[in-house]
Amino acid sequence: MVSVAIVGGSGYTGGELIRLLSSHPEVEIVDITSRQYDGTPVHKLHPHIRGTDLVFKNKKPSELDADVIFAATPHGASMKIVPELLETGAKVIDLSGDYRFNDIDVYEKWYGIKHTSDIKGVFGLPELHREEIKKATLIANPGCFVTGAILSGIPLSKAKIAERMIFDSKTGVSGAGVNPTTSTHYPNIGDNVNPYKPTSHRHMPEIQQELGAFSDVKISFTPHLVPVIRGILTTNHCFLIDGKEDITSEEILDLYKKQYEGEPFIQILEDGEIPRLSSVRGSNYAQIGCFEIDETGRLVVISAIDNLVKGASGQAIHNMNIMCGFDEKAGLDFFGMHP
Amino acid sequence: MVSVAIVGGSGYTGGELIRLLSSHPEVEIVDITSRQYDGTPVHKLHPHIRGTDLVFKNKKPSELDADVIFAATPHGASMKIVPELLETGAKVIDLSGDYRFNDIDVYEKWYGIKHTSDIKGVFGLPELHREEIKKATLIANPGCFVTGAILSGIPLSKAKIAERMIFDSKTGVSGAGVNPTTSTHYPNIGDNVNPYKPTSHRHMPEIQQELGAFSDVKISFTPHLVPVIRGILTTNHCFLIDGKEDITSEEILDLYKKQYEGEPFIQILEDGEIPRLSSVRGSNYAQIGCFEIDETGRLVVISAIDNLVKGASGQAIHNMNIMCGFDEKAGLDFFGMHP
Amino acid sequence: MVSVAIVGGSGYTGGELIRLLSSHPEVEIVDITSRQYDGTPVHKLHPHIRGTDLVFKNKKPSELDADVIFAATPHGASMKIVPELLETGAKVIDLSGDYRFNDIDVYEKWYGIKHTSDIKGVFGLPELHREEIKKATLIANPGCFVTGAILSGIPLSKAKIAERMIFDSKTGVSGAGVNPTTSTHYPNIGDNVNPYKPTSHRHMPEIQQELGAFSDVKISFTPHLVPVIRGILTTNHCFLIDGKEDITSEEILDLYKKQYEGEPFIQILEDGEIPRLSSVRGSNYAQIGCFEIDETGRLVVISAIDNLVKGASGQAIHNMNIMCGFDEKAGLDFFGMHP
Amino acid sequence: MVSVAIVGGSGYTGGELIRLLSSHPEVEIVDITSRQYDGTPVHKLHPHIRGTDLVFKNKKPSELDADVIFAATPHGASMKIVPELLETGAKVIDLSGDYRFNDIDVYEKWYGIKHTSDIKGVFGLPELHREEIKKATLIANPGCFVTGAILSGIPLSKAKIAERMIFDSKTGVSGAGVNPTTSTHYPNIGDNVNPYKPTSHRHMPEIQQELGAFSDVKISFTPHLVPVIRGILTTNHCFLIDGKEDITSEEILDLYKKQYEGEPFIQILEDGEIPRLSSVRGSNYAQIGCFEIDETGRLVVISAIDNLVKGASGQAIHNMNIMCGFDEKAGLDFFGMHP
Repeated sequence: MVSVAIVGGSGYTGGELIRLLSSHPEVEIVDITSRQYDGTPVHKLHPHIRGTDLVFKNKKPSELDADVIFAATPHGASMKIVPELLETGAKVIDLSGDYRFNDIDVYEKWYGIKHTSDIKGVFGLPELHREEIKKATLIANPGCFVTGAILSGIPLSKAKIAERMIFDSKTGVSGAGVNPTTSTHYPNIGDNVNPYKPTSHRHMPEIQQELGAFSDVKISFTPHLVPVIRGILTTNHCFLIDGKEDITSEEILDLYKKQYEGEPFIQILEDGEIPRLSSVRGSNYAQIGCFEIDETGRLVVISAIDNLVKGASGQAIHNMNIMCGFDEKAGLDFFGMHP
Repeated sequence: MVSVAIVGGSGYTGGELIRLLSSHPEVEIVDITSRQYDGTPVHKLHPHIRGTDLVFKNKKPSELDADVIFAATPHGASMKIVPELLETGAKVIDLSGDYRFNDIDVYEKWYGIKHTSDIKGVFGLPELHREEIKKATLIANPGCFVTGAILSGIPLSKAKIAERMIFDSKTGVSGAGVNPTTSTHYPNIGDNVNPYKPTSHRHMPEIQQELGAFSDVKISFTPHLVPVIRGILTTNHCFLIDGKEDITSEEILDLYKKQYEGEPFIQILEDGEIPRLSSVRGSNYAQIGCFEIDETGRLVVISAIDNLVKGASGQAIHNMNIMCGFDEKAGLDFFGMHP
Repeated sequence: MVSVAIVGGSGYTGGELIRLLSSHPEVEIVDITSRQYDGTPVHKLHPHIRGTDLVFKNKKPSELDADVIFAATPHGASMKIVPELLETGAKVIDLSGDYRFNDIDVYEKWYGIKHTSDIKGVFGLPELHREEIKKATLIANPGCFVTGAILSGIPLSKAKIAERMIFDSKTGVSGAGVNPTTSTHYPNIGDNVNPYKPTSHRHMPEIQQELGAFSDVKISFTPHLVPVIRGILTTNHCFLIDGKEDITSEEILDLYKKQYEGEPFIQILEDGEIPRLSSVRGSNYAQIGCFEIDETGRLVVISAIDNLVKGASGQAIHNMNIMCGFDEKAGLDFFGMHP
Repeated sequence: MVSVAIVGGSGYTGGELIRLLSSHPEVEIVDITSRQYDGTPVHKLHPHIRGTDLVFKNKKPSELDADVIFAATPHGASMKIVPELLETGAKVIDLSGDYRFNDIDVYEKWYGIKHTSDIKGVFGLPELHREEIKKATLIANPGCFVTGAILSGIPLSKAKIAERMIFDSKTGVSGAGVNPTTSTHYPNIGDNVNPYKPTSHRHMPEIQQELGAFSDVKISFTPHLVPVIRGILTTNHCFLIDGKEDITSEEILDLYKKQYEGEPFIQILEDGEIPRLSSVRGSNYAQIGCFEIDETGRLVVISAIDNLVKGASGQAIHNMNIMCGFDEKAGLDFFGMHP
């Protein structure tokens, strides 16, 4: 058993951490912090989590005493809190964008704020960085779009056969967080499709960093809000480099099967099956499929994840499991919810 | 460990049984039958359930060898299969309406078919019939609307203070089953509300039977399809008998707390909280709340359940747990999914 | 041609007025005011209304010069603006609750603010008050829930056969207005049902006032937010007074047909048809149907309207048509949008 | 006034034709045919269209006597009916795919059936073929995806600056028609995203034909079903030919403004506005916007249409207006419906 604290537990990723950790066999939640909701029982903000004695507390980072701390705080805030959390001796998993970038300049350009810490996190995508995660004290948990996108592209970039990938993502609204805004107002989302930041979303450079580590594939990314609560479906329109046009769907599928062999949360679809959100809803699984090539040489790979689980809190727990030497599926060993 | 078979595993309640039983610590699924899909791997019909070696098989009831058998077959079909299933020596939990009625005439009137079996099932609502369930060999698992409705009314009927209850229910579309029809066609459901069988739904007499066992309360019921996948929210508009008009909200709340004290899956809300579907989505919990009385003497009690879990497969597993002497929460000990 | 001004044009009822009046053959929009958006072209807030030269202007009531003025302002604000608007000599149609109540005490009790004007408006439900509307200078346009509820109850109250009516309403989220809040946040509404103010919604006394004018029927009202953009479906659970239990569905239907004969926007359904939102979506029609009586003597009548049209801006235009002597269907003569 | 007949009026495009033509100032509907629903009043299938005396009749093509006939029949059926309709002397507008292809081989390859007629239709996209439409007797009304896609690409193909376009489309479910199937079953669509035929949808060659007429741009197309009733949002990821990389967003915008100047139903968005479905819902407008270029040289253009109006029945009426010399906006001169 390890003791766990959650910093910033009132939002959706905080709620998912509590939901999932409550059923984790190796974990005890000892603290959930919130400045705004000090003293409030958890079920007042997360009405599905009842019958616990969990209460939000306004504790400083230095007051926490836990083996593992999840920082479910916004970017900017995490930057300041994480060093203090590390000083407590805990292993820290940060769900913000603050520690994801190898190059601080990229962070500062896309996030528009100064980076004030020189601590380095390990980019917490287990399928890419498992060995570093095992030894890490700070995990920078990947962005939700980033997770869906790079899982759909890793085998191609590693094989050095992709010239460019265009990620066209369709996301549920929970990715925008718990605070209501005009762009999450039901009448603006229901029965609608809303593209946003079509060429300038800050998850693009993060995708570029991870996929660009293997080859110099060009990355384009456009997200769309669809009338869905959870989930990101990413359509990766990929073009192959000159000289690789003869590759077949079967060979592509093979690359994916080899890359992800043994991965506990990756499901490679074949036989005409296509990923869709309901197959992974509420679970930590990612589904990857399609692998078709059209007459113009475009390869299509499609991935589906739950943005709050594999795209955030579930992946964070997966990282914890690896860091702590638990069974990787501990607390995450259940299927998605269809319908 | 008990061995479990599921008869008719291709529909939604079958899928939920597989989803939930796959994580049940005391259970091994040994057979899932389907006449239509003999030889088909389970994930072809339930795309969220992957990485198992489960395959549908076209087996006769007499060919099954399991400690517990769930019949997820339609009414009419269950009537014939259940006796054969019982002959195998298994404990049987039937999810259809066939064995729910004490009075066969009521069944024949509302279902419009002849009842051909004289076997009696125990009505499988643990909150009402736990002791009988413990000793039962055949459970008639309650209807989904019925579960939400009677949970909201039991304390009032037991206290003999209710003259009539009008159950106005709003249900998700998964309650209509896996087969597409005009009334489940997305363009007919999206952004719409569809009342149906406003005074003649066959779940009414089942509510009447269970609540009428304690007092002669009059029961009215009207269901509405809303653009929701899972869940039933029931608004119980209740009128009290003469002489009971002075009862207070607090006293009503007290009746509910006492009735459901210790119940593992009932959550009584207070302090202004109102049940809603997302609080129980995907879980076996029922939430009950409101307990307000308006100026005309109408008492409002509201319940929320997931129709496929507490309203069907989760409750069936709860019944199995009781029949087998397991921890009642085994395999069902997780929270709903909000958002 | 009459000239029209809209005060407070940035919200949903303002947008609907512009949308509908733009196609009205007898109307020219001369002013749309907004304090916040002075100088902003209309399409910046109402992205569907393009290619006009309409611009929001921050004008005072006294600066308006129009034959008809619609006040699409919140309650409290309307109270103060309406007298000034009337002083310009315009006919005024107020969409707020401020001038709907015959008894100021009722208003003050339910709205929690002091009423500071002694001007009286005509309650703008044409089906009840057409003759007064013809001569009125101030129309108090009815509340959206109120419209759906009383249309379903008028014939019963007029016939003095109803003892009580319980209005269980399911409403789209646009009724909550254009400003985002926690209760309109997509993740809280999608795939969910949210009851609210189950016994204390301020539309109840307005229903009481209008239906209570004909008999002393008791009124109960509970609204529910469903994942719908537009529309209110109201299920009127009605109980008849002693001695009227023998009335038949056919006789009830007859009452409705007679009451609404010749009404341009009322559609009485028969032959097993049931009102649903999509049949009236975007239109000024109200559908009323069901008229079934169950075994306990409960009569069910169901109405469906578009809350922004028949429940607000369309009804306001209907009132204008009557006040100005236009064809009552002018600008409103189109069908709903199904699917 | 022209007389109009609709062949195959029971589906969604038939319903839209009736809805829209009912308000058309120059049209009288004289016949609506249906083999299956002979004698049924229109409102029984289209519950929003009431108060007319329109009735489906099982008439043969040769029995029709109308100035204009709309064939809202499936492909394959239209192929056989259209010649007979033309023989009546009517102008014919066919909404199926049967007469859209210049090259019969392409049709036969993608539709998998033999083409048995040598009559040629005019491809009914007014923005491309207005002059031919004026003189046509047979219009082949474009596919819904096709309309959204090519409107977003015409100026680029005409300017001969596009090397390839990848159309990633998100469509509402009404595009699948009125008949329920597994892929339109609410529980499969709600809260979900379903890609389908990612590299093999039969609308691709139609896009290719029209855009390829101006330059040899390569076309890729992938459609996705989203939980929306109406509308198609198409994200056109476009790559420019070598030597054109220096073109700016402003110059691209200019191309679009010039191309569509004076077009009654095209709205070019600028100033950071992005097309979305609600802006055109229920209307014949197409919105086109974005025109941003990312760091990799990808140009993004986004279009939004209502698939049943601009993508089908509204465009058909626009074609009729042109053929008959009416005002092009007759019967279509109203805004979309937001929210």
